[in-house]
Amino acid sequence: MTPGPVEADPRVLRALSMPILGQFDPEFTALMNRIMSMLRELFQTSNQWAYPVDGTSRSGIEAVLGSLIEPGDKVLIPIYGRFGYLLYEIAERCGAKITVMEQEWGTVFEPAEIIAAIRQHRPALVAMVHGETSTGRMQPMEGIGAACREADALLVIDAVATLGGVPVRTDEWQVDAVIGGTQKCLSVPSGMAPVTYNDRAERKLNARKRVERGLWAEPGQSAASPAASLPARIQSNYLDLSQLQDYWSPARLNHHTEMTSMLYGLHEGLRLALNEGLESRFARHRLHEAALTAGLRGMGLSLYGDPSCKLPVVTCVSIPDGVDGEKARSQLLDDFGIEIASSFGPLKGTIWRIGTMGYSCRKTNVLHLLGALEAVLLRSGHPLPAGEAVQAALQVYDAAAAD
Amino acid sequence: MTPGPVEADPRVLRALSMPILGQFDPEFTALMNRIMSMLRELFQTSNQWAYPVDGTSRSGIEAVLGSLIEPGDKVLIPIYGRFGYLLYEIAERCGAKITVMEQEWGTVFEPAEIIAAIRQHRPALVAMVHGETSTGRMQPMEGIGAACREADALLVIDAVATLGGVPVRTDEWQVDAVIGGTQKCLSVPSGMAPVTYNDRAERKLNARKRVERGLWAEPGQSAASPAASLPARIQSNYLDLSQLQDYWSPARLNHHTEMTSMLYGLHEGLRLALNEGLESRFARHRLHEAALTAGLRGMGLSLYGDPSCKLPVVTCVSIPDGVDGEKARSQLLDDFGIEIASSFGPLKGTIWRIGTMGYSCRKTNVLHLLGALEAVLLRSGHPLPAGEAVQAALQVYDAAAAD
Repeated sequence: MTPGPVEADPRVLRALSMPILGQFDPEFTALMNRIMSMLRELFQTSNQWAYPVDGTSRSGIEAVLGSLIEPGDKVLIPIYGRFGYLLYEIAERCGAKITVMEQEWGTVFEPAEIIAAIRQHRPALVAMVHGETSTGRMQPMEGIGAACREADALLVIDAVATLGGVPVRTDEWQVDAVIGGTQKCLSVPSGMAPVTYNDRAERKLNARKRVERGLWAEPGQSAASPAASLPARIQSNYLDLSQLQDYWSPARLNHHTEMTSMLYGLHEGLRLALNEGLESRFARHRLHEAALTAGLRGMGLSLYGDPSCKLPVVTCVSIPDGVDGEKARSQLLDDFGIEIASSFGPLKGTIWRIGTMGYSCRKTNVLHLLGALEAVLLRSGHPLPAGEAVQAALQVYDAAAAD
Repeated sequence: MTPGPVEADPRVLRALSMPILGQFDPEFTALMNRIMSMLRELFQTSNQWAYPVDGTSRSGIEAVLGSLIEPGDKVLIPIYGRFGYLLYEIAERCGAKITVMEQEWGTVFEPAEIIAAIRQHRPALVAMVHGETSTGRMQPMEGIGAACREADALLVIDAVATLGGVPVRTDEWQVDAVIGGTQKCLSVPSGMAPVTYNDRAERKLNARKRVERGLWAEPGQSAASPAASLPARIQSNYLDLSQLQDYWSPARLNHHTEMTSMLYGLHEGLRLALNEGLESRFARHRLHEAALTAGLRGMGLSLYGDPSCKLPVVTCVSIPDGVDGEKARSQLLDDFGIEIASSFGPLKGTIWRIGTMGYSCRKTNVLHLLGALEAVLLRSGHPLPAGEAVQAALQVYDAAAAD
């Protein structure tokens, strides 16, 4: 019950073990098409491009930023937790001229602040985290996309923690590129990074494309000669979205050797998410969050951070005074087989982070965790009203069942 | 029976479906250590560093070249087939000043030619393909490593096609960095790129390291300030070997979220390869190559390329005059369930490429393919001595069994 990687769905694990097909086998390319179609649904978009990058979530972030940011581009990065700094780190390596906005950890930005900064700095690109697992906060997106269009900036969001657990409304929010994760709310093991992007983003890719393969061009890829006036070439070959797009296009231009098994897993994870129905899935995540937080409060614990922007799939709990947070975590794992997460940087040693994501977001898990945490705290000598936590959670479940 | 991706070993597929562990779980880090130790054995090296990059083979090539080549570095690339051009393409994006040597397809370089070029151009790095699947040739390595040390150049080889099927003698050949593949002779699905590199390569990484994370440093990573006199920073975050190395070191510094399931598969693939024994495994690949080539000759077909440098795990066959190569391939797949490969660039339409790699390198496969190909050719009206192919292959097997 960490904020990822979470327990993979057993049906996904089973799909991973299917015999592999060749990557240009018609059965396999049909599966690729189904995946693109399912990803569009999950990202709530009509974008043509929605496919996984072959790597962990970080590879998807780098593919998007590296393909969309040219050296010297002005980039605005609003940061409210650890993963905002990752966007900074990657954008810096792309040669971006970065303007950072920093918000105190435990809260988020007013969209108006970000909009004002966009108008002031007029960046080429704005990159931000949608759900910050380091602090358990979620950034409201209202108006930010529109401000980006007005300023002719591209808007990129890291929805690694949120995709499949809370709404990611790509088109409605006017986001130009979104990166999702598999090992969180989709309960597919780490290894693929679903991305989607629209025509505005694609225009930037196409401008940088120049298939100047020098000595070699695959059939269908004409070799163009470089010219000083063209925009800078994309630095990476492996994470070049213009090449990945060609591979996922009907032309299926050869690039990497697709990760067949991981794609089977992703396909099954997407099928399960869409079969459940997105709205039901989001409601399930909210229900178990409600039960978990009621239980934690029933135990007398305080939740960390501004409640108005809480990320529904990650709950941060203040470690009570006098309790050794790491010892409690070890005992949860060793005696009860439950893993919860510690925290990063300034929060180190002050909070625990509990994920309720995807397959691990279920009643039995929430109730077991509450019972186990209570036992661990009692054992450490921390006073609390014994038995209250699970009762409080059960009341939430009972009320929901009565609805 | 393509030159990859090949049929995955069913035991590897089963390993993929094991429940996942957290990436800092002691059981999981112990598995990581076992993988490093097994990779050292497979790469025939005492290098400290031997671990997989989380991506397809191409990601491993880019991680190695991108981490070892600084913009402006002189790089020598001897090319004798399609995948040499990939090294060129990636090195070019790293900003290398490249000198290319091109050899006619179907043969390889005399090591002396490469050695002379190293002495003449004095590159910072030499990158070459060990086994070229596009032409079915294997480059002899004798003396090249020594010449690189003499010239103070790093030697990098792409052993994606050869690792686990033919000897890759990292230390004996004095190769500084090697990239292997999983989806070929290891019969693990595509998704990880095992790499190894020595102290000479690590020195280059360390020189470029500068943990200038700007606004953020993980515990254990001190933020250093950039200085103009330092070597250029590694462009990629995801494929930065200095960061991957920290993650695989005992310190386990947080980087990406490890691809747990793929690592289980790799672990099982390595276990199977080492249990078989490297020398037995190489002998098995040679035996089935001998049977396959005897069978193809028995059918009256000609093998493509210079036989003195044939890659044992890939056999290229000239498509006989009057035979539609693609139609024959489709019939093999549709009627017999056997996939063989077409070819690239200048060889398009002229040869078929047959892989005998890892789990797919076995007697039943070779005999079925020979029988099926004979049937397909007969049906297309191509005259051949019916029944000879399988008999010729069986004679090779009988002789080996009698040994």
